[in-house]
Amino acid sequence: MRNRLNVGVIGAGRIGRLHAENIMSRIHEAVVKKVADVCLDGLDYWAHFNGISKITSDYKEVLNDPDIKAVLICSCTDTHADLIIEAARAGKHIFCEKPMALNIKKAREALQAVKDNGVKLQIGFNRRFDHNHRSVRNAVLSGVIGEPHLICISSKDPAPPSLEYCKVSGGLFMDMTIHDFDMARYLSGSEVVEVFAAGAVLIDKEIGELGDVDTAVITLKFESGSLGIVSNSRKSDFGYDQRVEVFGSLGSVADFNELPSTAIISTADGIYSDKPYSFFIERYEHSFVAEIKAFIEAILNDKDPEVSGDDGIKPILIALAADKSYRLNRPVKICEIE
Amino acid sequence: MRNRLNVGVIGAGRIGRLHAENIMSRIHEAVVKKVADVCLDGLDYWAHFNGISKITSDYKEVLNDPDIKAVLICSCTDTHADLIIEAARAGKHIFCEKPMALNIKKAREALQAVKDNGVKLQIGFNRRFDHNHRSVRNAVLSGVIGEPHLICISSKDPAPPSLEYCKVSGGLFMDMTIHDFDMARYLSGSEVVEVFAAGAVLIDKEIGELGDVDTAVITLKFESGSLGIVSNSRKSDFGYDQRVEVFGSLGSVADFNELPSTAIISTADGIYSDKPYSFFIERYEHSFVAEIKAFIEAILNDKDPEVSGDDGIKPILIALAADKSYRLNRPVKICEIE
Amino acid sequence: MRNRLNVGVIGAGRIGRLHAENIMSRIHEAVVKKVADVCLDGLDYWAHFNGISKITSDYKEVLNDPDIKAVLICSCTDTHADLIIEAARAGKHIFCEKPMALNIKKAREALQAVKDNGVKLQIGFNRRFDHNHRSVRNAVLSGVIGEPHLICISSKDPAPPSLEYCKVSGGLFMDMTIHDFDMARYLSGSEVVEVFAAGAVLIDKEIGELGDVDTAVITLKFESGSLGIVSNSRKSDFGYDQRVEVFGSLGSVADFNELPSTAIISTADGIYSDKPYSFFIERYEHSFVAEIKAFIEAILNDKDPEVSGDDGIKPILIALAADKSYRLNRPVKICEIE
Amino acid sequence: MRNRLNVGVIGAGRIGRLHAENIMSRIHEAVVKKVADVCLDGLDYWAHFNGISKITSDYKEVLNDPDIKAVLICSCTDTHADLIIEAARAGKHIFCEKPMALNIKKAREALQAVKDNGVKLQIGFNRRFDHNHRSVRNAVLSGVIGEPHLICISSKDPAPPSLEYCKVSGGLFMDMTIHDFDMARYLSGSEVVEVFAAGAVLIDKEIGELGDVDTAVITLKFESGSLGIVSNSRKSDFGYDQRVEVFGSLGSVADFNELPSTAIISTADGIYSDKPYSFFIERYEHSFVAEIKAFIEAILNDKDPEVSGDDGIKPILIALAADKSYRLNRPVKICEIE
Repeated sequence: MRNRLNVGVIGAGRIGRLHAENIMSRIHEAVVKKVADVCLDGLDYWAHFNGISKITSDYKEVLNDPDIKAVLICSCTDTHADLIIEAARAGKHIFCEKPMALNIKKAREALQAVKDNGVKLQIGFNRRFDHNHRSVRNAVLSGVIGEPHLICISSKDPAPPSLEYCKVSGGLFMDMTIHDFDMARYLSGSEVVEVFAAGAVLIDKEIGELGDVDTAVITLKFESGSLGIVSNSRKSDFGYDQRVEVFGSLGSVADFNELPSTAIISTADGIYSDKPYSFFIERYEHSFVAEIKAFIEAILNDKDPEVSGDDGIKPILIALAADKSYRLNRPVKICEIE
Repeated sequence: MRNRLNVGVIGAGRIGRLHAENIMSRIHEAVVKKVADVCLDGLDYWAHFNGISKITSDYKEVLNDPDIKAVLICSCTDTHADLIIEAARAGKHIFCEKPMALNIKKAREALQAVKDNGVKLQIGFNRRFDHNHRSVRNAVLSGVIGEPHLICISSKDPAPPSLEYCKVSGGLFMDMTIHDFDMARYLSGSEVVEVFAAGAVLIDKEIGELGDVDTAVITLKFESGSLGIVSNSRKSDFGYDQRVEVFGSLGSVADFNELPSTAIISTADGIYSDKPYSFFIERYEHSFVAEIKAFIEAILNDKDPEVSGDDGIKPILIALAADKSYRLNRPVKICEIE
Repeated sequence: MRNRLNVGVIGAGRIGRLHAENIMSRIHEAVVKKVADVCLDGLDYWAHFNGISKITSDYKEVLNDPDIKAVLICSCTDTHADLIIEAARAGKHIFCEKPMALNIKKAREALQAVKDNGVKLQIGFNRRFDHNHRSVRNAVLSGVIGEPHLICISSKDPAPPSLEYCKVSGGLFMDMTIHDFDMARYLSGSEVVEVFAAGAVLIDKEIGELGDVDTAVITLKFESGSLGIVSNSRKSDFGYDQRVEVFGSLGSVADFNELPSTAIISTADGIYSDKPYSFFIERYEHSFVAEIKAFIEAILNDKDPEVSGDDGIKPILIALAADKSYRLNRPVKICEIE
Repeated sequence: MRNRLNVGVIGAGRIGRLHAENIMSRIHEAVVKKVADVCLDGLDYWAHFNGISKITSDYKEVLNDPDIKAVLICSCTDTHADLIIEAARAGKHIFCEKPMALNIKKAREALQAVKDNGVKLQIGFNRRFDHNHRSVRNAVLSGVIGEPHLICISSKDPAPPSLEYCKVSGGLFMDMTIHDFDMARYLSGSEVVEVFAAGAVLIDKEIGELGDVDTAVITLKFESGSLGIVSNSRKSDFGYDQRVEVFGSLGSVADFNELPSTAIISTADGIYSDKPYSFFIERYEHSFVAEIKAFIEAILNDKDPEVSGDDGIKPILIALAADKSYRLNRPVKICEIE
C-alpha cells in the first residue's frame, strides 16, 4: 500500500526470516515482496503472519522479478558467491550474509561481478551497527582518545554450535572470530598485516577431534603500527561477552555488555545484577535492524554501503592467516595468503 | 491481510500516533482500523505511511464500527471520562491515557459504565511496563528483599512543559507526580493512606505565578506501615532521571537510568559516559509497546488488564491529597479527599 | 622522640581508642601523651602496644598537664558539655565527639566557655571528611551542578544498636539522623528552617515500645529554598548504605557505597560484586584519620576548625524539631525549638 | 618500647623509605632499627621524623647487627642477588624487591644461599597483595568460575620512566611486564610454558632507539592448557590502568580500576567520574603494607612466605622469553631460556 523499495530474500533460515520480519515491521522504506527457500515447510504461515505475499522454492523467481530492486542473500555460505554473481548480473543490489565466501578466489569473482554490473553490495557484518560498538568507533573517529595503540576485543559465545555445524563452519577463526577481525578493522581504521593465533581445546574434546579449537587468543599487527588482541571462547556461561576497547595516545574508550535490566539487588548474599543476553538475536537485535536500514538507505540515496565487498574479503584473509598461524605456531603475514 | 483484532484510536496527537504506529509495526495480534481526530491536517500522509486505511474527524465513526473491538482514548484529558462512558456503552474494550479524569466523581461514573457494560479498561500508566521498573517489581514480588520498608522514587523531567500546558495540566502533582504515585503503589503492593508534600519554585518563576511548583519532595505513608519518598524536578539538564528503589527487611533493589550506549571514555579529563535519554518516547520506548501488547492480550485471553480502572483513580486521589498538603503545609490523609 | 603536638584523650571507649591509635600511627604532627578513662581494665596493654606512655583514671590529670595542648573528648554524651567547659578553662583546644550535648542550653554554655577562653573547638562529624561525601561537596562548591535544588541522603545502618543503648541514645533522630542533618547542611551550604519527619517501627517492636522508631523519612526545607530528604533504617542487611546526592540547576552529583573490592563475578547465576562494609570503622576509616588530622592542622596553623561549635548545635536543633514533628505529625520550624 | 621484630632496610630510595615508613606507622609487630644507603643526604631528617634511630652508609652495619632479624633489600637491581647471598649468610630473613636479578644464574646462586642458610626469602611482587587482584585470585580458588581458560591482564602505566632509567631497566618486559607475568602465574595457578610477544614503539621514539618498546601484547600458554594475554603501555593518560580478568569454564571474575572517589557528576556535558590513580604508591598503597605485614608474619609464625624465591625466578624467565620472542618474532618456549 505504501510506495516502498521491493526486496527479495533468498534463504529463509533464522537470519533470513529475521531480516524479512525487521523489514516488514520496522523499516518503512522497504517491503519484502518475495522470499525463496529450498524448503517451504511452515513458511506460508510465517509469511502470512508477517504480511509477506509470496514465497517460492525457486530463487530465480526472485532474481527475475523486475519489481525487486534488492536481494538479501541469507542462504548457506557455500552458495553466497555464486548468488552474488547471479544477482549482480540480474541488476539487483545485494546484501549478503557473512562470510561472503570460504574461498578468496571465489570472493574476488563475486566482487568483480558486482563491479561490472554497477550494483551495490553490503556484507552482513551487523556488529558494526551495534549501538555500543558504534559509540566506541565514533569516539575513536572524534579524536578524543588520540591515535589508537591497542585494540582489544573480548568475544565469547554462550555455547558452542552443534558438531554438525562445526564440521562445515570453516573453524572458529572463519566462523566466529571473523566478526572480531571485521571489528578490529572497523575500530582501528587500519589494515591487519600480520596475525599470531594461539588456540586451545578446553570446552569440548570433540571439537578438537575435528581439528578445530574452542578457545583462542589472537594477536594482530596493524599497518598503522598499533597492536590488537582478540580473545575468544565458544562457551560463556553467563551469556554473550562482547566487549571492545580502544586504547590510544590520549585515552581509551570501551563498551560493556548491555544487560536486560539495570536493576541491582543488594542482600546479605551480595550485590547482583542481570546477566548479559544469551541469544544473539536479543544481543544484537538493534544492529540487525540498523544494518538493513543502512543498506536500504544506501540504495535510496545512491551512496556506498557502509560495509563494502572489500570489507567482506579482508576478514576472510585474516581468518585464513589466523588458521595458518595456529597450525604452524608462528606469526603469519596477510600477504602470505592468496 | 492477517486475522487480527481491530482497534480504533481516538485522538491522534503525539501519544495517539505513537500507539497506532506501535500496533502497526510491532504488535502482530492487532491492527489499527480507524483513527479519529478533530484535526486531520497532515494525518492522511501519516496514516498512509503507516498502513492505516481510514482516518476520520468524527470519533463516533470509530465507536459505531462493529468490526472495531477496542479503542485507545488518547484525546485531551478533559474528554477522557466521557469517552470512556460512550465507548463502554458501545461495547468496546478501552485503553485510556492517564489521568482518566481530573475529577473523582467523573472518574467513578466512567468506572461504573465500564462495569455495567462488561468491557475491559486499562489505564495508560506505561511506566509499569518499563523493563527496569518491572525488574524491580519482580524482585520485590520474589521476596528476595523481604518486606518493603522504604520506597524511593527519583523522577525528573528534562525540561518543564510550556506555560500554556502548565495552566491546564492540573499542576505538577496531577500531571507529573501522578506517574510516581502509581509507581509507588505498584512497587509497594500497598495503598497510600497519607501524604505530605513539600514544593518549591526553583526553575521558573512563571510556574510559581500560576500557583504551581517545579520542584517537590513528597512523603508517602502506606497501609502496610512502610514509607515512601518521591523527589521531582521539572528540569534535569542531563536528561530523564527515572530511578526507583525498594528497601526491605532483607535487602534492596534499585534500578538506574539506562544510557543510549555503554561506551565509557577515559582521558586526562576524567572518565565519562553517555547521558540518559532526554525524550520520553526514547526513554520509555519499550514500555509503550509493552502496555498495548498487554492490553491486546488481556482482550484476546479474556483476562483482567494489568492496570485497572481502580489503578486509574487511586493516583488521582493521591495527587489531590498532595496538592492539598502542599497548600496547607500539613500531612493529608487520602480519606480526606472526596 | 619527634617534636609533636601533645594530645590528651578523655574516654577510651571504642572511638577514643580509635582516635588515639590513628594519632600514634598515622598523624606525624601529634602524639598522644595521656589517656584518661574511668575504667583502666586492659587499657595498659593497649596503651603499651600503641606506644602511649601514660594512662589515668582521673581526667583532670589530662586537663592539668601543661604540656598537653589539645584534648579529645570521647566520653559519654552526657559529660560532653561539662568537659568542654572545663577543658576550655584549662586552655586546651578541644575535639569533641557528636552530639556535643543532648540539651541546647548546655551546648550554648559550652560554646560560650570556648569563646571566652579563646580555644578551638571541633565537633566529631567525621562524615564530612569521608572522601566520597567530600568529593560531592567539592563538586557542589565548584558550581558544576549550579544551584542545589534537592539534597538526598540515604543513610542506613547494618543493624540496630542494643535496646540498652537505644534507651539512652536520645532516639533515632538524635543518635543516627544527626549525622545526616549535619551532612545536609554541609552539602547544601544552607540552613535547615523546617522539618517534617515520618517514622515507623518495622524492624524491632521493642524499639517502638521505647517510643522510638527504626525507619524514617525526613523532609527538610532550607533557607535557600531548596528541599532535602533523608531516608533512614536501623537495619540494612547488605551493610552500610551511605549515599548522598545533590541535584541542582545544572546537573547532579551523587556518590555510591564503596565496596571492599572491585572484583565482579559473572556466572550462570548472575553478575555479582562485594557488599558494602558492615562496620562503621571500616566504612569511615579514612574519615576518622582525616578529621583528627584537620583538627591538629587547625591548631598548628591557627585556623578555624572545619566543623565549628555552631555546626555542633545546629543538627541538635534539627533533631529536636524532627522528633517533635514525628510526635505531632506536622512540619516543625527550627525556630520553634528553644 | 614494644617488643617487636627488628628490621634493617638496605637502600633508602623511594621504595625503601616507603617500606620503612609503613613498618613504623602501620605494622605493630616490627620496628625499623637501621637503614643503610650509600647516600645519606637528607636521610637523617627523614629518619628522625619517622622515629628511626639509626642510619648508616655501610650496609654491613645492618647485616652485622645481631638484633636485626630481617632485612629489606631495596637497593639497585644489580646488587640484589649479592645482597641476598650476604644476608642469607648473616642469617637474616630477606625481603627483596623485584626483580631479584637480571640474570638467571645469579638468581639461582642467591636461592641456593637462602636454602643453605635456612632463612626465609620473599620477593616484592606487591600486586599479589592488592585487595582487588587478591579478590580475583580468591574467586578463582573458590572454584566459582570453574577451570581457568583465559587470563587477561591490562597493565598500563601513567607515563614512561626517564630514558636514563629505561637504559638500565632491562627493557619493558623485564621492568614492567614482569609484574604481569607474576600476576598471570598467581591468577592461573599454572606455569607459563610458552610466550609470544608483539611490541611497538608508539609513544616515544627515543625508547625505540634504545632497542626497547613502549607498547606490547604478549600471549601466554600455560602448562594447564589455558591461554593468557597481557597488554601493556608505558603511557596511559587517565592514570594507572591495572585490571585483571580470569575467564573459566563456569564464568569469569574481573576487577576494575579503583577510583579516588565514587562521586559521579551528571550534567548536560555527560556523566563523569574520577580518574584512576596516577601514582603507583597511591594505586598500590595497601598492597605495600600488606606484603610487608605478610613477610613479618611469615617470620613470626615460621611459615613459608607467600611469594617464594622460585616465584622470583619464574617471571624473569618469562621476561627473557618474551624479549627473545619479540626480537625473533616467533613464539619462545620457557625451556629455551637458560
